[in-house]
Amino acid sequence: MFGKIRNLLIGQALKTEELKSEKFNVFWGLPILASDAISSVAYAGEEILYVLIPLLGILSYKYMLFAVGLIVLLLCILVFSYRQTIQNYPDGGGSYIVAKDNLGVAPGLIAAASLSIDYVLTVAVSTSAGTAAIASAVPELLNYKVIITIGLIIFMTIGNLRGLRESSHMFGIPAYIFMAVMFITIITGIVRYYVFGYRPTPVLSIPNVTGDITLFIFIKAFTSGCTALTGIEAVSNGIPNFKEPSQKNAEKVLLLLGVVILIIFGGVSFLTTLYKGVPNSNITVLSQVAAMVYGKGIMYYIVQAMTAIILVMAANTSFAGCPLLLALIAKDGYMPRQFTKRGKRLSFSNGIVLLSIAAIILILLFKGDTHLLVPLYAVGVFISFTLSQTGMFMKWIRSKKGAWRHKAFINGLGAVLAGITAIMQGVTKFKEGAWIVIILVPVLVFMMLSIKKHYNKVAGQLKLPLDEKPKQIDMAVQKNYMILPIDTLNKSFLKALNYARCISDNIIVFHVSVDDGATEKLKKRWDEYNLNIPLVIKKSPYRSLVGPLVKFIESEEFVTTPRDTITVVIPQFVVKKWWLNFLHNQTALFVKSVLLKRRNIAVTTIPYIIEE
Amino acid sequence: MFGKIRNLLIGQALKTEELKSEKFNVFWGLPILASDAISSVAYAGEEILYVLIPLLGILSYKYMLFAVGLIVLLLCILVFSYRQTIQNYPDGGGSYIVAKDNLGVAPGLIAAASLSIDYVLTVAVSTSAGTAAIASAVPELLNYKVIITIGLIIFMTIGNLRGLRESSHMFGIPAYIFMAVMFITIITGIVRYYVFGYRPTPVLSIPNVTGDITLFIFIKAFTSGCTALTGIEAVSNGIPNFKEPSQKNAEKVLLLLGVVILIIFGGVSFLTTLYKGVPNSNITVLSQVAAMVYGKGIMYYIVQAMTAIILVMAANTSFAGCPLLLALIAKDGYMPRQFTKRGKRLSFSNGIVLLSIAAIILILLFKGDTHLLVPLYAVGVFISFTLSQTGMFMKWIRSKKGAWRHKAFINGLGAVLAGITAIMQGVTKFKEGAWIVIILVPVLVFMMLSIKKHYNKVAGQLKLPLDEKPKQIDMAVQKNYMILPIDTLNKSFLKALNYARCISDNIIVFHVSVDDGATEKLKKRWDEYNLNIPLVIKKSPYRSLVGPLVKFIESEEFVTTPRDTITVVIPQFVVKKWWLNFLHNQTALFVKSVLLKRRNIAVTTIPYIIEE
Repeated sequence: MFGKIRNLLIGQALKTEELKSEKFNVFWGLPILASDAISSVAYAGEEILYVLIPLLGILSYKYMLFAVGLIVLLLCILVFSYRQTIQNYPDGGGSYIVAKDNLGVAPGLIAAASLSIDYVLTVAVSTSAGTAAIASAVPELLNYKVIITIGLIIFMTIGNLRGLRESSHMFGIPAYIFMAVMFITIITGIVRYYVFGYRPTPVLSIPNVTGDITLFIFIKAFTSGCTALTGIEAVSNGIPNFKEPSQKNAEKVLLLLGVVILIIFGGVSFLTTLYKGVPNSNITVLSQVAAMVYGKGIMYYIVQAMTAIILVMAANTSFAGCPLLLALIAKDGYMPRQFTKRGKRLSFSNGIVLLSIAAIILILLFKGDTHLLVPLYAVGVFISFTLSQTGMFMKWIRSKKGAWRHKAFINGLGAVLAGITAIMQGVTKFKEGAWIVIILVPVLVFMMLSIKKHYNKVAGQLKLPLDEKPKQIDMAVQKNYMILPIDTLNKSFLKALNYARCISDNIIVFHVSVDDGATEKLKKRWDEYNLNIPLVIKKSPYRSLVGPLVKFIESEEFVTTPRDTITVVIPQFVVKKWWLNFLHNQTALFVKSVLLKRRNIAVTTIPYIIEE
Repeated sequence: MFGKIRNLLIGQALKTEELKSEKFNVFWGLPILASDAISSVAYAGEEILYVLIPLLGILSYKYMLFAVGLIVLLLCILVFSYRQTIQNYPDGGGSYIVAKDNLGVAPGLIAAASLSIDYVLTVAVSTSAGTAAIASAVPELLNYKVIITIGLIIFMTIGNLRGLRESSHMFGIPAYIFMAVMFITIITGIVRYYVFGYRPTPVLSIPNVTGDITLFIFIKAFTSGCTALTGIEAVSNGIPNFKEPSQKNAEKVLLLLGVVILIIFGGVSFLTTLYKGVPNSNITVLSQVAAMVYGKGIMYYIVQAMTAIILVMAANTSFAGCPLLLALIAKDGYMPRQFTKRGKRLSFSNGIVLLSIAAIILILLFKGDTHLLVPLYAVGVFISFTLSQTGMFMKWIRSKKGAWRHKAFINGLGAVLAGITAIMQGVTKFKEGAWIVIILVPVLVFMMLSIKKHYNKVAGQLKLPLDEKPKQIDMAVQKNYMILPIDTLNKSFLKALNYARCISDNIIVFHVSVDDGATEKLKKRWDEYNLNIPLVIKKSPYRSLVGPLVKFIESEEFVTTPRDTITVVIPQFVVKKWWLNFLHNQTALFVKSVLLKRRNIAVTTIPYIIEE
């Protein structure tokens, strides 16, 4: 039944050979890799105001512009330093790889942990922001935000398990529409304001407070806005997906991306200061600005719809990136090996499911509130920025080739600025949730190191020296003991017994007595059956079934040599419907798991199929 | 690790012989069996007002007295009719047994289903009412009601898994104290009101509405109050626990219980009409009345504390009763057999855990609100009352011995009144939640019948005709094929291979190729190893490991006769810590579950222990 539902949802299996991915040029590459970055305009500006407005009131818009200016500056520097990563990692230069290559395993794992957290948060933040955009336009949905958000995540999970390719047209067209819509909104807003002197009634009134700015508040506002920069590392991960010359094309896309963010984020933020949107849990700031610029007409609803779509697309980039990262880490042995396996549809199913579950848990814990999630968000991104830029810096320092001083300076500057931003985020947002990330990163790194250690240990123990030959078997001397637990003498037991008799002459039928009456009945039937096989009976005062069996095998009553093999043969009912398992076999399963812990007991399961 | 935690929480295992239960006399029997019934005064009166007050305002208190009068009348009739059950079922006459004996399997199962639902609701309602009593006295806890309620349930679950006996003193003393406190409160309240003309300011004001009573509203109020009668069937279940003459003693306790409910429920309700408590989600009516009678002094807090304690004790009676009922049903084959097994501490652990999980789910769904749970509550009880009394009525009709007409009349009256009440509850509370019970009962009955049908089918298929002898084994002719899947040539594979070579000469080493490079490497090593055992290699385009294996076994390439046995030998890593299993064996587990579905493939698991 599960299989049928899965086929319906996920589709038929695909062959390994069908694995290939579409290569894109600059025109289609930009929108695909940009959705994460450009979608953040939907909440980054709002997050700045969310910090400022309750303290500064009307004064906030002035400082918002300063903060946005700083963020744009940081953006430019990061674009230049990532350009150098692209030039040097033709196969894709994710933070994990760059940090591991140049700084060592531990920094690589810190980058990996930060990035993983970041991927989960991208899904959580983008989908909740998408839901907020929808609910701003359709207030009837406000009470169902958490359910809608989780629904979006599940929808994406299924889509990605089916093996949703980042098809350039499917992703590119909405992204270009979104950019166009934002551009039109910015122009319309500025023209109406300055040329026609248009001053709409504000959707919400600005709280009447007159606090003054402090450095701490300003830094907090700045770091909140830094969420606008998440996603710019996507280009350097995606190099192999570009058409030749792939590095050149990736560089062009990165530059264009910088320009697009600059225009849209800068423009929308400027518009916000003109029209004075106010953060509120029911209507997003972008929605307020659009409503004021256009009135509640068709254009307003287009803005909301395109915002929701680009945010869901942004979340979807994590579904492409995170499982790939996990597979990379798992291949190195730092995550369970299951993450390297491709599912029926060639997607890394385990990674997709893990990402989805983690994001849903976050949504439930934070009730789908973007404001509560954002403080956790950017720390991880900036930690990985810092490590990857530091890695590049060390690369130049070591190579000392060509214009290495110049290049080291650019990456060094990127590293220092990203590092300072990460620290500022950790400090100003500590109480609001950054502490979770600061605790989680070392915990994850420790976990990954432990996994590697365990795999290494197992590999060491399993390694077969070339000169170790299989043991000499002398069938005449060694004995194969077959122990058959019996409860009642029925057909399934008989099937197990027939199997055992085919294989060996040394058969012991073992009965654990919990109820004297039942034991007497069995004894009588066994004698009638007259098989010349001994029936060993042990009492079990504590009602345990496996305890007496293990005790018997280890007792002196049961004499074996190291040459001999001991096999416990257990019949198992096989039922047609999965839920019928709840009515059977519980004991067999438990007995098996305990027996296998003994060094030299093999357990053979004999299926007995129950017909419908 | 799980084992250690379990031992800490649950305690060391107990021997079967230690199973014995304390017998009690009338004095201690009363409080033990009464806690469920007398605890309902804490909410039954409030439920009546909850229906009336919003519609009738001040007029409600008049009709409350009428409703209480009717409930007390119904109580008297039920006491008399249950007396006759006690006289005829010396081993305990629960509704399931009485209905099954006299009406047949289906009515017996309907009673069983209703009772099971009722047990779950007793836990949910009593613990939430207990929490409400605590939170009325300590308003700081109001926000944590759900957590406190779930905490109480978990506490009781652990206690009962440890094998908490219904020790007479532990339960009797608080119950007597509660009765005494209630009695004192009633007397104090009446004396202060009538003798001293004491009129305290009401805790809450009565809403100013002047609707008039309708028959529907009155019936709804009456049925809400009927929750006061839940628990009176406990005495007839508990007969075997009384000292000799057990039936006489049980009869006495039942009569006394009737008197106690009459005085306390009648008295507290009367007090409520004098002091005019108003239902409210933060302060219970009983708490308001106590606050008005005593002022917020020590006596007030004693009332609240004793109410909470008696309610938790009432919930605990379900933890004793429900697993026993499930064991009884499971013994008859209508529930999974696991429910008949006693755990380490001799309690029916599976039943306890199921009850606990079901109650916690209810608490979460209904947010621990007593008012929302009560509409579901009494329907089940009254369905089982009706069936048990109808069963007794049929017994007399069939026996036609002694004063059978007289006896049939009493039980018949009980059946008719309980039936009418059940129907009135179903109708008036349908929308508020009774529909859930009305749907759930047939679903549960259907489920129980399906389970029985399945068990019967299995028993039929397993039954061994006495003349069917084990098959003739001719070791010379038949072959034992051992198939060993191989991924890489390592020590765990070698252990499995050595085992297989001990047992048989017909060994096939089988490799599923997903990655050409890895397969080439394996081939080379296998040839170097030079074992003269064929290595069968099959490609798997869909990356499935078990598919090619099954296909091979069923193909013509692999020739067997029905005489032969086929065994797939799989090494399984055994790790010291349970969570390390996530890093291993996933494939082996899956392969096993698929192979066992084939009629004649045995699967042998060879443990390979990974050292720490």
